[in-house]
Amino acid sequence: MAASIIDSQIFQGIFGTEAMRQVWSDENRTAQYVAVERALAIVQGRLGLIPQEAADEIVSHCEIGQIDMARLREQTERIGYPILGVVTQINQLCRDGLGEYVHWGATTQDITDTATVLQIRQALQLVDDELAAIAQAMAQLAREHRLTPMIGRSNLQQAIPVTFGYKIAGLLSAVLRHRERLAQLRERVLVGEFAGAAGTLASLQTGAMETQAALCAELGLGQPVIAWHTIRDNIAEVGAVLGLIGGTLGKLSMDVKLMMQTEVGEVYEPYHHGRGSSSTMPQKRNPISSCYIHAAISVVRQHAAALMDAMVADHERSTGPWEIEWIVLPEAFCLLAGALRQSRAVLEGLEVDPVAMRRNIDLTGGLVMSEAVMMGLGHHIGREHAHDLVYDLCRESLARRVPLLDLLASHPEITPHVDRAGLEQMLDPANYLGQSGLMVDRVLAQMA
Amino acid sequence: MAASIIDSQIFQGIFGTEAMRQVWSDENRTAQYVAVERALAIVQGRLGLIPQEAADEIVSHCEIGQIDMARLREQTERIGYPILGVVTQINQLCRDGLGEYVHWGATTQDITDTATVLQIRQALQLVDDELAAIAQAMAQLAREHRLTPMIGRSNLQQAIPVTFGYKIAGLLSAVLRHRERLAQLRERVLVGEFAGAAGTLASLQTGAMETQAALCAELGLGQPVIAWHTIRDNIAEVGAVLGLIGGTLGKLSMDVKLMMQTEVGEVYEPYHHGRGSSSTMPQKRNPISSCYIHAAISVVRQHAAALMDAMVADHERSTGPWEIEWIVLPEAFCLLAGALRQSRAVLEGLEVDPVAMRRNIDLTGGLVMSEAVMMGLGHHIGREHAHDLVYDLCRESLARRVPLLDLLASHPEITPHVDRAGLEQMLDPANYLGQSGLMVDRVLAQMA
Amino acid sequence: MAASIIDSQIFQGIFGTEAMRQVWSDENRTAQYVAVERALAIVQGRLGLIPQEAADEIVSHCEIGQIDMARLREQTERIGYPILGVVTQINQLCRDGLGEYVHWGATTQDITDTATVLQIRQALQLVDDELAAIAQAMAQLAREHRLTPMIGRSNLQQAIPVTFGYKIAGLLSAVLRHRERLAQLRERVLVGEFAGAAGTLASLQTGAMETQAALCAELGLGQPVIAWHTIRDNIAEVGAVLGLIGGTLGKLSMDVKLMMQTEVGEVYEPYHHGRGSSSTMPQKRNPISSCYIHAAISVVRQHAAALMDAMVADHERSTGPWEIEWIVLPEAFCLLAGALRQSRAVLEGLEVDPVAMRRNIDLTGGLVMSEAVMMGLGHHIGREHAHDLVYDLCRESLARRVPLLDLLASHPEITPHVDRAGLEQMLDPANYLGQSGLMVDRVLAQMA
Amino acid sequence: MAASIIDSQIFQGIFGTEAMRQVWSDENRTAQYVAVERALAIVQGRLGLIPQEAADEIVSHCEIGQIDMARLREQTERIGYPILGVVTQINQLCRDGLGEYVHWGATTQDITDTATVLQIRQALQLVDDELAAIAQAMAQLAREHRLTPMIGRSNLQQAIPVTFGYKIAGLLSAVLRHRERLAQLRERVLVGEFAGAAGTLASLQTGAMETQAALCAELGLGQPVIAWHTIRDNIAEVGAVLGLIGGTLGKLSMDVKLMMQTEVGEVYEPYHHGRGSSSTMPQKRNPISSCYIHAAISVVRQHAAALMDAMVADHERSTGPWEIEWIVLPEAFCLLAGALRQSRAVLEGLEVDPVAMRRNIDLTGGLVMSEAVMMGLGHHIGREHAHDLVYDLCRESLARRVPLLDLLASHPEITPHVDRAGLEQMLDPANYLGQSGLMVDRVLAQMA
Repeated sequence: MAASIIDSQIFQGIFGTEAMRQVWSDENRTAQYVAVERALAIVQGRLGLIPQEAADEIVSHCEIGQIDMARLREQTERIGYPILGVVTQINQLCRDGLGEYVHWGATTQDITDTATVLQIRQALQLVDDELAAIAQAMAQLAREHRLTPMIGRSNLQQAIPVTFGYKIAGLLSAVLRHRERLAQLRERVLVGEFAGAAGTLASLQTGAMETQAALCAELGLGQPVIAWHTIRDNIAEVGAVLGLIGGTLGKLSMDVKLMMQTEVGEVYEPYHHGRGSSSTMPQKRNPISSCYIHAAISVVRQHAAALMDAMVADHERSTGPWEIEWIVLPEAFCLLAGALRQSRAVLEGLEVDPVAMRRNIDLTGGLVMSEAVMMGLGHHIGREHAHDLVYDLCRESLARRVPLLDLLASHPEITPHVDRAGLEQMLDPANYLGQSGLMVDRVLAQMA
Repeated sequence: MAASIIDSQIFQGIFGTEAMRQVWSDENRTAQYVAVERALAIVQGRLGLIPQEAADEIVSHCEIGQIDMARLREQTERIGYPILGVVTQINQLCRDGLGEYVHWGATTQDITDTATVLQIRQALQLVDDELAAIAQAMAQLAREHRLTPMIGRSNLQQAIPVTFGYKIAGLLSAVLRHRERLAQLRERVLVGEFAGAAGTLASLQTGAMETQAALCAELGLGQPVIAWHTIRDNIAEVGAVLGLIGGTLGKLSMDVKLMMQTEVGEVYEPYHHGRGSSSTMPQKRNPISSCYIHAAISVVRQHAAALMDAMVADHERSTGPWEIEWIVLPEAFCLLAGALRQSRAVLEGLEVDPVAMRRNIDLTGGLVMSEAVMMGLGHHIGREHAHDLVYDLCRESLARRVPLLDLLASHPEITPHVDRAGLEQMLDPANYLGQSGLMVDRVLAQMA
Repeated sequence: MAASIIDSQIFQGIFGTEAMRQVWSDENRTAQYVAVERALAIVQGRLGLIPQEAADEIVSHCEIGQIDMARLREQTERIGYPILGVVTQINQLCRDGLGEYVHWGATTQDITDTATVLQIRQALQLVDDELAAIAQAMAQLAREHRLTPMIGRSNLQQAIPVTFGYKIAGLLSAVLRHRERLAQLRERVLVGEFAGAAGTLASLQTGAMETQAALCAELGLGQPVIAWHTIRDNIAEVGAVLGLIGGTLGKLSMDVKLMMQTEVGEVYEPYHHGRGSSSTMPQKRNPISSCYIHAAISVVRQHAAALMDAMVADHERSTGPWEIEWIVLPEAFCLLAGALRQSRAVLEGLEVDPVAMRRNIDLTGGLVMSEAVMMGLGHHIGREHAHDLVYDLCRESLARRVPLLDLLASHPEITPHVDRAGLEQMLDPANYLGQSGLMVDRVLAQMA
Repeated sequence: MAASIIDSQIFQGIFGTEAMRQVWSDENRTAQYVAVERALAIVQGRLGLIPQEAADEIVSHCEIGQIDMARLREQTERIGYPILGVVTQINQLCRDGLGEYVHWGATTQDITDTATVLQIRQALQLVDDELAAIAQAMAQLAREHRLTPMIGRSNLQQAIPVTFGYKIAGLLSAVLRHRERLAQLRERVLVGEFAGAAGTLASLQTGAMETQAALCAELGLGQPVIAWHTIRDNIAEVGAVLGLIGGTLGKLSMDVKLMMQTEVGEVYEPYHHGRGSSSTMPQKRNPISSCYIHAAISVVRQHAAALMDAMVADHERSTGPWEIEWIVLPEAFCLLAGALRQSRAVLEGLEVDPVAMRRNIDLTGGLVMSEAVMMGLGHHIGREHAHDLVYDLCRESLARRVPLLDLLASHPEITPHVDRAGLEQMLDPANYLGQSGLMVDRVLAQMA
């Protein structure tokens, strides 16, 4: 029985992914605890801080399969934290009291934090993989529609033409920056924790820093410059980057929703039988994935703020702020994973309708090309005068519902300079795409 | 396998309650869908809008036990929403095509929203029950410690005495207001939804409003004044009230944490063997419950903001905002339920140490009684002069680490008016509790 | 020189209102401080707690015009709080040392909190006045367009017809509930504070509760049941209600923005010369007010969460949480006031285009009426069969771009039962408005 | 008259700094608009896109002193945006219609966004300068108190000793990472915007990209890879980093507040006469700066979430999300600047009381050294047995209020192995500081 939407049997495929839920599962969390205890025994045996025999015995029992999860739950409810339960179980699995050497010199938070970092490493990899796939899908759309004209919209008003490739390339530029952010963040956050009860490692009279260094190396993590039990900027930064990535997915979903409107109809989420269609309204094509993206990232940004609150930790081991991370990290990663998966599906299967895009450009009878016409006529009759003249004709076109071309082609101040064919060319959106293609190229060049 | 902390096998007892998770479970959510379809068939049969035979047949299959949950999951993943799957299953369970009359005139959101309101009704009852129990526990503490002196603290500095009962009564006053808020909120939020595809009930050519009224009555809900598919102030208000309740629990946990400090030691969370104690540091008595409360309510207040975002719904059925509620409502209710449960346990088992409270009052050698002394001496030597004199003696007491009483009792300007016994009385915190007891009484009187 | 957008000389008319900024100005805040000190002197004189001569002298100087604001600023920067500066100034204005009786028995927070409540009272009045005006404007639109058909949209897809009046009436129902919330909230929040250094009123040996009661009565406020220096649910509730109101304005602005799209064009914000129009793109009609509403309320909902954080106050006078309110209350009220003003202007001057609304209904060639046709044919050929037949014809209509009417009117299974005229009637949106008008009436009835 | 706390004459010195308010002032914002228009004229003159004579004339009027701010306000209220007003004013200042060439090919958002980036550059510099000063102050404290013992606290319980230098070094490590984040962020955010109405630069038929490149170079900014009118990850990242910095300041203020408690008394905010002291309670030493820090950063983290909401921008120029930035950026920067200033003052003037720190270590009669004793005795009587023995003695010490040393020194199992002098050494916190000093060194080494 699951209460959260993420773990709901009914909704779990929508608001998360199997792989990401696996990362934050009880099983994997506990497996990472065990992996840290195992690595600790290995390096302390190697450093001669505990007997090699003990290290070997401990390692032989540091397998998630040997942990009794039901018993662990009982232990956790009684104690309030699961680490002591894990340590007790490993200890008891060991022969001859050798298990006494497990967890040597460590404190609960050392194991929990290092395990969390290992989970974060797995989770960030999943995020980055999805971003890479999304970038590929965007690149393909941007390349394919590099010069596919569509109307650019400002304040939800038709403005001037752009290309669909340009629109996608803007999003792609953000995705590439997100991957850069992730790379920079990993340098900071993928460090281990091994610092003892108050962070000073007083628990190990010898070999303290050597154990810390070797443990981190064994786990493929960086060594912290100082204990970070209550210095949580790195964890909060993870949340912030998830929020930022979510923002970009939110913009994607917003544009897809708007372009899928019945009155617009320029792109469509990929169609699956029965999904997003109505049993009684066959004209509907619901942007289901975009809905889910919108919802998920709205919550993720609030989680980002909660993780900043978790930074306000007291003294050497905090009294509540730390536990905010326990709640938020799984939620935020799962919701974002769901949004990434939905976004990728939307992009990889997006149906683009260039004909509809062109039809929408023409919707205003040429008015959206007025800037182009002003510019074109400026050469002949002066920029200022061209502006005023075209502006007036646009208003007349709107009022009388006459195509702008007809008004232009019959105006005595214009006909001496440009004929109807020339005007048609000025009004052709394909001739007013500006640097759309070049900007697409600039973004694509960054993927190399 | 659960990813969220709420559904974690290891942590679920800490960050939620069994009863609240049950409310938001797949099983109960689906059971409420079925309950709404059932009630709809009943009232439409009664109104003659569908054949009584069909109503009877439908009702006989509207039981959660007859729903195939595994199949429902498949249906949901394919369609994006679970309602159609439920309707299909009920329909197929019915003989002779009578199932065609299930869901008559309804739309997906009608069933979902009404079911959500039924879940909210259950969940608010759990919240209110816990608040009632918390109020009882607070009232008992307030009554018992109506005149137990402790130091009042301002800006984390010892200020002047209060009583422990007064401190608790302040929190109790907020809990009573929360119950008032819940009562007012229920009037608004416990209304059904039955409005069809765009809220106009065009789907029923006859008996539309009659069905709506009867359905709501059948379910014990209010009738909406108009469809609220995209008018979500009531749902957001639920989140806001949860956030407000969380704020009060946060204040409680903050004070408990501070009073449990080693250097303060005035109260203690109830002790359970192994819980909150350290295996190597026997002097520790960790405020475990307060930690969990602090963390949970930090996230709940962000959820409140997310639900306000969900109000920005588009047109007649929203494109994403609605789904924010799906994510947030279970989370917020479960986290708050966990925080309420922890708060209740803290209050019902709180160990109060009046001796330590008194010891802390005396920590400054009488300085915290300086205001009382100023007042007392004012009658004899003038308020302004008394202030300056006492203030100077306080600074001398601080600097020379001499009890204030000794300085007062040997000062030539004071001894003519008040003797040492009189000064001792002025310095007795029990004589400077102001209206503490009366204020306790005023709050307790509101519970009657 | 102003840094905030609210106080910006350039933007202040957009993101706030003069009246609301006045409420939160230094001048008015200080004036409320003075008003509280004045009322305190009056009632303490009346109760005989201070000499009547002193009370009279103090009252004669309790005028904002007598306060030296420049000096107050210096005092505040030195001390950290402004109250002591105000008290000192009043004291010094009084003759013969009578000023010593100002602020008798009060603490800084007593005056600050009571003054804040007085500001909140003014601010809530402004909010409620705007809500009343907005309700009027909505009621007029709902009445006028009670039966003006427009397409209802679900998931940004055209669904079935509604009326514009119905759309507005839904919003109106929320506005009416907000006014109800304000009324209930006022009962809780409009109470004074007079409780002394730690809330116990020990500072007054006699007449403590009498002063509290009389002071609150003098100011037209309720008497608190107990001190609320660190019990801040009422203040946080103010923020929550502002956030909820903002959510409704956000929904309004969202719908206006969407309806103003070039491709939709059903309503327009009122036009002011130069505002919202483009110098080069005459086809544009920007929803400027809706933009500002969207932005303002996005921030207000985060402020609501910040005020919940402010509830986590420590002990008897909090160490930071209180000051969150100082930052947030002015911001949130000003931003909401700006959003209310913009919303009111939009509603009072809204241009509604019923012709465009009708044109959009017809955009799909009748498909949005398919539900109505299914219902209508069901009487003749069975509901199930009608559904399948119409659904197929809809898909054919979409694929072949043939009006649905033509397909229906030439289908051999239909023509025997309904002729073209009958089908036309079925396809007339005016005949499929369901309970739109009735629901409008139900909402309007609540305004009486 | 100011309504916001940031611009309040009374509070502006507390919740912001003069320098930061200057950055976000109307004057500076407008000055940056003018600077961008000026640079544009310069480069377009140089590129031959506009007459050199026009460029020179425009440049000669691109001075903030020549802008009529009162008129600009009127223009802004009428139009909704200030840029057009600025352009009109510059244009009118120019002789012979040469002003027609100002703003050539630019759109409102080009100028606004580039000006905002210039403001962000100034603001980030102020932030980084304060962080550098804070790092210096922290480094000095860490160095000076590298081995000053104090008790480490876990869950607000005394745990084991640390050093005050270690405590500060942990914070310093975060400050150094924040500076690294700022450096990485600057690479992304300090880019110009010059892209025309829909980002395609169609407005310039020749020299479009050359103008963009030269304009950015002229302003010392990077060139964007593509237009970012609605791709706002960089702006949102600014907010996120401000929120993260705030988190660290929040942790600093939390620890200072806790250490300043009457019952703890280990450090004090610098004392200024009249500030933070009470007129009637001379024992009080209020952590005023820490209060203000706590409050400011609580709001800044909510602003971070609001800026993520601003990323959900529609199409090519957004309809509301952009304006969220207008509200939030000045607020967030000013509040953080105030918090940085307060933090710096706290650190530069912090009074540290090593005697009190030592006294608090001794508060438990040696219990906080029990881990050290267990370790020390483990060599003689076995770790496990030592643990059980010491744990029992600790509980006896607590129960009977007898110093642990006395119990240890008289226990028959211990005396054979260690004498009282040896036990005293084990109980000396200076011998159980672990790697505190080394960790301080590691952090300080990163500053080089």
